[in-house]
Amino acid sequence: MFAVAIVGATGLVGRTCLEVLAERRFPIARLGLYASPRSAGRRLRFAGSEHRILDLESADPSGYDLAIFAAGAEVSRRTAPEFAAAGALVVDNSSAFRLAADVPLVVPEVNAAALAAVGPRGRGWIVANPNCSTIQLVIVLKPLHDAARLTRVTAATYQSAAGAGQKGLDELERETARALAGARPAARVFPHPLAFEALPQIGAFLDSGATVEEQKMVDETRKILGLPELAISTTCVRVPVKVGHSEAVWVETERLLSPEDARVLLAAAPGVRVVDEPAAARYPLAAAAAGSDLVYVGRIRRDPASPRGLMLWIVADNVRKGAATNAVQIAETVFAAAPAAPDAAHGRTAARR
Amino acid sequence: MFAVAIVGATGLVGRTCLEVLAERRFPIARLGLYASPRSAGRRLRFAGSEHRILDLESADPSGYDLAIFAAGAEVSRRTAPEFAAAGALVVDNSSAFRLAADVPLVVPEVNAAALAAVGPRGRGWIVANPNCSTIQLVIVLKPLHDAARLTRVTAATYQSAAGAGQKGLDELERETARALAGARPAARVFPHPLAFEALPQIGAFLDSGATVEEQKMVDETRKILGLPELAISTTCVRVPVKVGHSEAVWVETERLLSPEDARVLLAAAPGVRVVDEPAAARYPLAAAAAGSDLVYVGRIRRDPASPRGLMLWIVADNVRKGAATNAVQIAETVFAAAPAAPDAAHGRTAARR
Repeated sequence: MFAVAIVGATGLVGRTCLEVLAERRFPIARLGLYASPRSAGRRLRFAGSEHRILDLESADPSGYDLAIFAAGAEVSRRTAPEFAAAGALVVDNSSAFRLAADVPLVVPEVNAAALAAVGPRGRGWIVANPNCSTIQLVIVLKPLHDAARLTRVTAATYQSAAGAGQKGLDELERETARALAGARPAARVFPHPLAFEALPQIGAFLDSGATVEEQKMVDETRKILGLPELAISTTCVRVPVKVGHSEAVWVETERLLSPEDARVLLAAAPGVRVVDEPAAARYPLAAAAAGSDLVYVGRIRRDPASPRGLMLWIVADNVRKGAATNAVQIAETVFAAAPAAPDAAHGRTAARR
Repeated sequence: MFAVAIVGATGLVGRTCLEVLAERRFPIARLGLYASPRSAGRRLRFAGSEHRILDLESADPSGYDLAIFAAGAEVSRRTAPEFAAAGALVVDNSSAFRLAADVPLVVPEVNAAALAAVGPRGRGWIVANPNCSTIQLVIVLKPLHDAARLTRVTAATYQSAAGAGQKGLDELERETARALAGARPAARVFPHPLAFEALPQIGAFLDSGATVEEQKMVDETRKILGLPELAISTTCVRVPVKVGHSEAVWVETERLLSPEDARVLLAAAPGVRVVDEPAAARYPLAAAAAGSDLVYVGRIRRDPASPRGLMLWIVADNVRKGAATNAVQIAETVFAAAPAAPDAAHGRTAARR
């Protein structure tokens, strides 16, 4: 059994982490739920009992086996090292440490091997959870790369409001209702009103003209796949979808892959579900992916503009597999490598060591 | 002055054609508004007077200088040749004739020269209006091609409900309202509910795995630019936007074009407005393009995955420039080539010929 801290427990990803931990029967001995002073004192139910939200500002980081951070990059930068220093495995959902050379950036289905360094309990380590758009992309790219070597990746995203958290979801619903009533929709979370609009900006702009989100997809995909020179470019767009990111993706490979080859490879890949029966109008959709932990891929077809190119449509629940579930899976992967069963390792047998 | 027929006058594109004709003070001597028997007998206002909708089934196609068809491919296939045979210039919004070798497919800013063959009044000719997604794409591609030769084009679209006409718009609004009220949204116009969803299907699927819409963009772009071998591939996606299509576009050119070069070329291109100040969160948006006849382009940046690649974000009102306005511009372009002024050519001077 493990002592687990969730930092940012009241947010959309934090709450979904709790759901996923419960669903997967993660063996929790003690649970510390942290949030900003504003949320401290509130109560959250978990596995049938109420938990008081603790103030992160006065947190005691000691005694945790696992600390999942879901409170943004600034909080992670400030506080995650304290939890790690106190002995926890930190799984960080933010971008704060993703590109640090000594921080594994992990999608368990893709590069669990990157966790070898952290040892059987990951004590004192920070492991980074990738960006949501990256996770669903690399899960599909990996089997294609293993079979045929990627030479180029191009992606245009259709990202949901939930990527901006509960406040993003709330803004989309509220402003869509206002727009339907004839009012001019407003924007506080998004750079412009998202109601009935496709916004080609997620995150701030860099000097290159790319947004932070676009650069994350490039950098993180390269790091996870171990392809630092991979030719990859992305355009990230927020669309009025509640939950679930979609991606139109073009890939080119060294060796020729037919759409049928790709379908067979992807059908056998961990964490992937192929939904590709266009004649029956069956292809991945955000509404169908929401609530699932799989990455859905379809519309797999030859790229008529490239001799060894394929086109795909990739959809996943960005809050679950794109964030919460992947974080929990990272912890499971680390702890599964422990020499004894989790409860033995932490509890009675610990005394025998 | 011209005798003008609008076929499909009660639809979204037909009504917008009437608006555009009035705004541009197109010199109309006689107006025949046609629709299906279902709509016949209704009345539409135009330029201050009421017009009775005529039944297309019993139409007399004679006496028209111009017939704009906006009633779908089947109606065009059946009826457009009759209006042309009776002497009209037919401008057809449907896909029925676009790829026919003897039918000019025209965006006046791009390939007005293709109208040379139709002569000064276009009598008896059918000229095809391209697909909405194609029009806004080629308007931006043309100046880039002239300056640097296109070698490859990749596009992912974000297409509005209005692309499916008034019934598409109505379904989006109605089902979004139902979804907000907690009901499960339904679909009749779209293949799946569009409310809060990105649908990777516009039109039926071809054996290649592409949709009809995707193939239209490929075929029509090649024809309009006169580049039958152009490497181009597209993924067309319907998004919950009311009016205005957006496109994430990658282009590669033979000669190197910097983003700044492209901005200068596009700023000088007819029908294009560059909106590209990312630091101020200024880029093209559907809500801003709606109601305009310009094609907006921004987010112009180097493609990090290609030595001579650029990335762009292109937005236009698909009902106006993507359909109605372009159709009217085609007619204006043909009639402007007439040796005498339009009213002289049709009225008094006609007798002198």
